[in-house]
Amino acid sequence: MGSGDRTGSAEMNGGAPAAVDKGVDFAQYFCTYGYLYHQKEMLCDKVRMDAYFNAIFKNKHHFLGKTVLDVGTGSGILAIWSAQAGARKVYAVEATKMSEHARALVKANNLQDVVEVIEGSIEDITLPEKVDVIISEWMGYFLLRESMFDSVICARDRWLKPTGVMYPSHASMWVAPIRSQLGEQKMNDYETSMEDWHYFLEDTETNYGVDMSVLTKSFSEEQEKYYLQTSLWNCLHPHQVIGNPSTVKEIDCLTATIKDISEVRSHITSSITICSSRLCGFGGWFDVHFRGRMEDLAQEEVELTTAPSVDGNTHWGQQVFLLYPPVSVNEGDNLNVSFSMTRSKENHRLLEVDLGCEIHQASGKHLQTLEKKFYID
Amino acid sequence: MGSGDRTGSAEMNGGAPAAVDKGVDFAQYFCTYGYLYHQKEMLCDKVRMDAYFNAIFKNKHHFLGKTVLDVGTGSGILAIWSAQAGARKVYAVEATKMSEHARALVKANNLQDVVEVIEGSIEDITLPEKVDVIISEWMGYFLLRESMFDSVICARDRWLKPTGVMYPSHASMWVAPIRSQLGEQKMNDYETSMEDWHYFLEDTETNYGVDMSVLTKSFSEEQEKYYLQTSLWNCLHPHQVIGNPSTVKEIDCLTATIKDISEVRSHITSSITICSSRLCGFGGWFDVHFRGRMEDLAQEEVELTTAPSVDGNTHWGQQVFLLYPPVSVNEGDNLNVSFSMTRSKENHRLLEVDLGCEIHQASGKHLQTLEKKFYID
Repeated sequence: MGSGDRTGSAEMNGGAPAAVDKGVDFAQYFCTYGYLYHQKEMLCDKVRMDAYFNAIFKNKHHFLGKTVLDVGTGSGILAIWSAQAGARKVYAVEATKMSEHARALVKANNLQDVVEVIEGSIEDITLPEKVDVIISEWMGYFLLRESMFDSVICARDRWLKPTGVMYPSHASMWVAPIRSQLGEQKMNDYETSMEDWHYFLEDTETNYGVDMSVLTKSFSEEQEKYYLQTSLWNCLHPHQVIGNPSTVKEIDCLTATIKDISEVRSHITSSITICSSRLCGFGGWFDVHFRGRMEDLAQEEVELTTAPSVDGNTHWGQQVFLLYPPVSVNEGDNLNVSFSMTRSKENHRLLEVDLGCEIHQASGKHLQTLEKKFYID
Repeated sequence: MGSGDRTGSAEMNGGAPAAVDKGVDFAQYFCTYGYLYHQKEMLCDKVRMDAYFNAIFKNKHHFLGKTVLDVGTGSGILAIWSAQAGARKVYAVEATKMSEHARALVKANNLQDVVEVIEGSIEDITLPEKVDVIISEWMGYFLLRESMFDSVICARDRWLKPTGVMYPSHASMWVAPIRSQLGEQKMNDYETSMEDWHYFLEDTETNYGVDMSVLTKSFSEEQEKYYLQTSLWNCLHPHQVIGNPSTVKEIDCLTATIKDISEVRSHITSSITICSSRLCGFGGWFDVHFRGRMEDLAQEEVELTTAPSVDGNTHWGQQVFLLYPPVSVNEGDNLNVSFSMTRSKENHRLLEVDLGCEIHQASGKHLQTLEKKFYID
């Protein structure tokens, strides 16, 4: 599909530019998934594991005697559960050498007659038949980082029967105003870095006779991007969420196209729910649902949420988009937020966000409009 | 030179396999040099800066009215100094977009009539003439990590006049027995990781019905490699060096070939110089010298050393090859060490070391022979 070295042709990507060179994609992205240590981190995420385990075993009717495709099987866990839930045949596709461990795991659990591990990109491999279920744990930070859902869409369009079911079936992205000390910390780090730069300029001129001040603007832009404009992984406490969360994106995994998910544009409103607080930025997270499909619903719906939680945090954490300085806000103030997310031109697996925020105070007064660009690295 | 996508043909590399794909090489290696923050770290290394500054300005006869090629100019500092020392023309070659900053720096220091910044790989670019001096700061950890000297050799073979001078002119790699707490720390980390793995196996079997014990061997090998077999960056104190350092490699930058440096094999001896100490492993470092050439010597020789130092440490630190458990040694004990270093097959810029060590006690008794493989990642 597409040209030899590309992971997707323009036509297949709905007109989007071809994905990055495979060798580079491996060096930048896939390679970390070849480590057992990384797989173990995900396997130790109890919330994640419980959600998929329950989604499968509380809905065995979707699996009993059926055919399943696990996209990006990693260690093989979802494929193994699918087989244990009674699948007739499971195709477990994995791009990295982790596939060898998956194969060993399948055998050690006596499921080699049901689960076939295939090493390769889902875009390239061929299956002998279409499948009843596509299962995949494809979600990256804030859902779409890593752009792995592209591969699931490809698998769905090629290999899912017209009556087939997606696991998960739906996904949502959420954004909420937050308070956080991180904004101030990062600003301090940035300012320290710039102070240090100015001492460096002095020393280099004095000791080495070279005037490097022409680089100050570029250095400061680089440091600003690093400290102030890059979203952070963080585990937010629910108390840090100071206003109603809103969805910026809803995805039906059965029908979404790559074009649908390449660009996320949304206007949301959020009311501040805390008295006398400070708006320090926004938190972003996602949830996925296992609802089956209209004609073949789940018997028991399961949800996997990555919302801020006291004891249910996941390895995904949340993504935090910091504003500095913070803005004083009060219960009842309304935020009009424009949210726009696109893929980075340099690396389609990374994202860029444009956030705009108007604050309408409960008193009726309209406060400033904030606008800021962020990079999800 | 070589095929379009390769950074060196087999013939040019003296029969060695072609280097890695350029896109991958950029994603894995070059890209960090495109950041001003990284350049600043190197520019803030006073020992490094002083050495090159003095090498140039105490030997202006090598530069006055001459042509110079700076391989991997980065911010442009060496090219700028060469011009300030009186060079007629300096070609400053840089593979990353850092070249744009170098060009701005040259202009801001009024040297644009002398210094021409060229963006590209030294293997690909063309110069209008051969040069009198090739200057480059190419040294990686333990000298040869990053394998950048390959590019300097290429530049030399293509662009240095028969009478030309290399800056630096010579390089040496040193190894010495050391004591260090790191070996024990890393062993603890490894053991903790394996304990944790066993709890993980229990939990996964109990809660999720999957037996992952077949992966234990692979996981343990992966963790062993990470914690116990990977050399570490460390700043050693001179007190940690417990025996005479020895050279494992000497390089004449004027004549060395890629074949010469692709494989380092040496037998060295070292006497323990401390009473009642513990051999915890070996430290590796390098020095480079600016001696000019036989027919055109430096007026004042300069040395840049990265040996363990109280106040002269560099950003290179030393590379530490840890053995565990440590072995008790005494003053007068002799170590016979076999040292073999080759390039990693997966990535020619990374290295693998085979270390063997026989301990001959002062009493005449021959203690065990230790053998261990290390990865310089």
